[in-house]
Amino acid sequence: MSWRDNLIKIEPYVAGEQPNKTDFIKLNANENPYPPSPNVIKAINDFAAGGLKKYPSANAVPLVAAIAKREGLKPENVFVGNGTDDVLSLAFRAFFNSDKPIIFPDITYSFNTVWCDILNIPYETVSVDDDFNINPDDYARENGGVVLANPNAPTSIGRDLDFIRKILDNNPDSVVIVDEAYVDFGGTTAIPLLKEYDNLLITRTFSKSRSLAGMRLGWAMGGEELISALYATKDSMNSYPVDSIAQAAGIAAIEDEEYFQSTLKKVMTTRDRLTAELREMGFVLPDSSTNFVFASHPKYSAKDIFEYLKTKDIYVRWFNKPRIDNRLRITVGSDSDTDMLINALKQFIK
Amino acid sequence: MSWRDNLIKIEPYVAGEQPNKTDFIKLNANENPYPPSPNVIKAINDFAAGGLKKYPSANAVPLVAAIAKREGLKPENVFVGNGTDDVLSLAFRAFFNSDKPIIFPDITYSFNTVWCDILNIPYETVSVDDDFNINPDDYARENGGVVLANPNAPTSIGRDLDFIRKILDNNPDSVVIVDEAYVDFGGTTAIPLLKEYDNLLITRTFSKSRSLAGMRLGWAMGGEELISALYATKDSMNSYPVDSIAQAAGIAAIEDEEYFQSTLKKVMTTRDRLTAELREMGFVLPDSSTNFVFASHPKYSAKDIFEYLKTKDIYVRWFNKPRIDNRLRITVGSDSDTDMLINALKQFIK
Repeated sequence: MSWRDNLIKIEPYVAGEQPNKTDFIKLNANENPYPPSPNVIKAINDFAAGGLKKYPSANAVPLVAAIAKREGLKPENVFVGNGTDDVLSLAFRAFFNSDKPIIFPDITYSFNTVWCDILNIPYETVSVDDDFNINPDDYARENGGVVLANPNAPTSIGRDLDFIRKILDNNPDSVVIVDEAYVDFGGTTAIPLLKEYDNLLITRTFSKSRSLAGMRLGWAMGGEELISALYATKDSMNSYPVDSIAQAAGIAAIEDEEYFQSTLKKVMTTRDRLTAELREMGFVLPDSSTNFVFASHPKYSAKDIFEYLKTKDIYVRWFNKPRIDNRLRITVGSDSDTDMLINALKQFIK
Repeated sequence: MSWRDNLIKIEPYVAGEQPNKTDFIKLNANENPYPPSPNVIKAINDFAAGGLKKYPSANAVPLVAAIAKREGLKPENVFVGNGTDDVLSLAFRAFFNSDKPIIFPDITYSFNTVWCDILNIPYETVSVDDDFNINPDDYARENGGVVLANPNAPTSIGRDLDFIRKILDNNPDSVVIVDEAYVDFGGTTAIPLLKEYDNLLITRTFSKSRSLAGMRLGWAMGGEELISALYATKDSMNSYPVDSIAQAAGIAAIEDEEYFQSTLKKVMTTRDRLTAELREMGFVLPDSSTNFVFASHPKYSAKDIFEYLKTKDIYVRWFNKPRIDNRLRITVGSDSDTDMLINALKQFIK
């Protein structure tokens, strides 16, 4: 036996293409086109960096308090991590210790299967319909847990509170995770259901609606038992996942409600304009409740459009995967980036 | 079956006491008494926070390059994570997939057993001798991996290159991790052995010698196969563990060699003075190769001293654990904090 035999055998997750140049239009990672709140920038630039010699608050106590206040919850119902991926991977580890498979849609966040593989969690996917809609009655089967994104990605489709309630009513014996990464762009939050269902965990990110992808901040909201299990798991892996500056930036972002709302409004206005323009060109796409659209064209292959846009230095996301390989996921950028995209598409189609 | 039955069952790791007040002398977490390099502070305060809307470099490429350059390695030999605990937990997951137990000293970093528990890694501890010395011949037994800290914690004892070489020669079929968290304070690095042993992984932290505990940065150095396995594991858990500001701060810290050396010198000078003063008071302690000392007194119980110091608003670390429960781990603070500590101890002993 060599030490090589004991190395982990996994296929690394491959993230979206990040071109090794700076002068291009990046619409492939659902980043926000606007900078974070000026208060965040001020908090960072005024940060007393001398204090970094000390460890941060291990449980990000002040940031948890700010989030709890904004969402009308108690601090015991909030957990903060090093990006939502950190929070979700801890949640999978903390909650999904059943022999029964956890279930999630076949078309959803692609990291789910990666976490299941590395954490040895059995799973089964549940097909969405041909319009990418999730049928809540499909989630009445026996399972070890349920994972949804609402709005879903990469489909951009948001569902209402009744939909989540049906899933929860079908699953009183499972933890149900609802990732609300994109909810601020017009989705419906499940927060009101937290009072009724202590098996519900909602996750959120600072990366999209709060323009802080570079800062790595995500959080979870749920019943005290779930949140305690997240802390216990975190404390068994890495006690201090969120650095002091990230905590300060997060607080400033959460507390600037006005900037937050104005940025959301701008992104949603651009999205609706992009949606109308795409439909005019013949693209088919569902109404988006997110900061991206999920479009196909009956006459042109998504891959061809994707490759063509790259030649114009415009990067969107194309998934070489069953059922969605003729769709493009296009991030809503600034107005000028969106104009460039629309012009390029018009040229291609002409 | 309730969802509660599927929650993880673990005892959370309990970190050192962090008093909920500000006016006290904190010598219990091995933090550096000096702030980070002025260049780090400048890098943070000049950071273009508007850029945080974009994801960071997923693999911290520029920071990896800076570390590789400083240590005379290739970028393929360096991995950066969200603190050394993040790096070590990934390393345990990536390397220790044998049915045989991994082995480490009974007195060493206490997180080892926690990672083994949550990752289901079998382990056995190997007793250090009564002077807390590790015998490299004890590491010739069959195992699934070896984990050492050199200098060791909380003992403060550093060993030479021959010691590490013996361990490696005894273990050609195991990955050997050497955590060098404290090596800059007078220990001997195993970096020269990387050329000869591709089963060696060395870990480092920015938290101690580089005064960046609040920033959460750690790294690993090793053969390409080990580093690749770390990336694959990271990419299966959380693709972007190190935020953009942390990467910028890390580069500034690595590149300011002069400040680094001057801070180390100050800490080591204070440590040697503290060691001499403690011995004069009758304390017994090994020569420290770290930024802390590990002391006992033949006439007074460590717990009593610990409790007494707390009444003087001085916090040191006392471990309520077999073999070391009559020892104190005392961080080397500033000169004035050290004076306060020495005076308090003199009062107690008088």
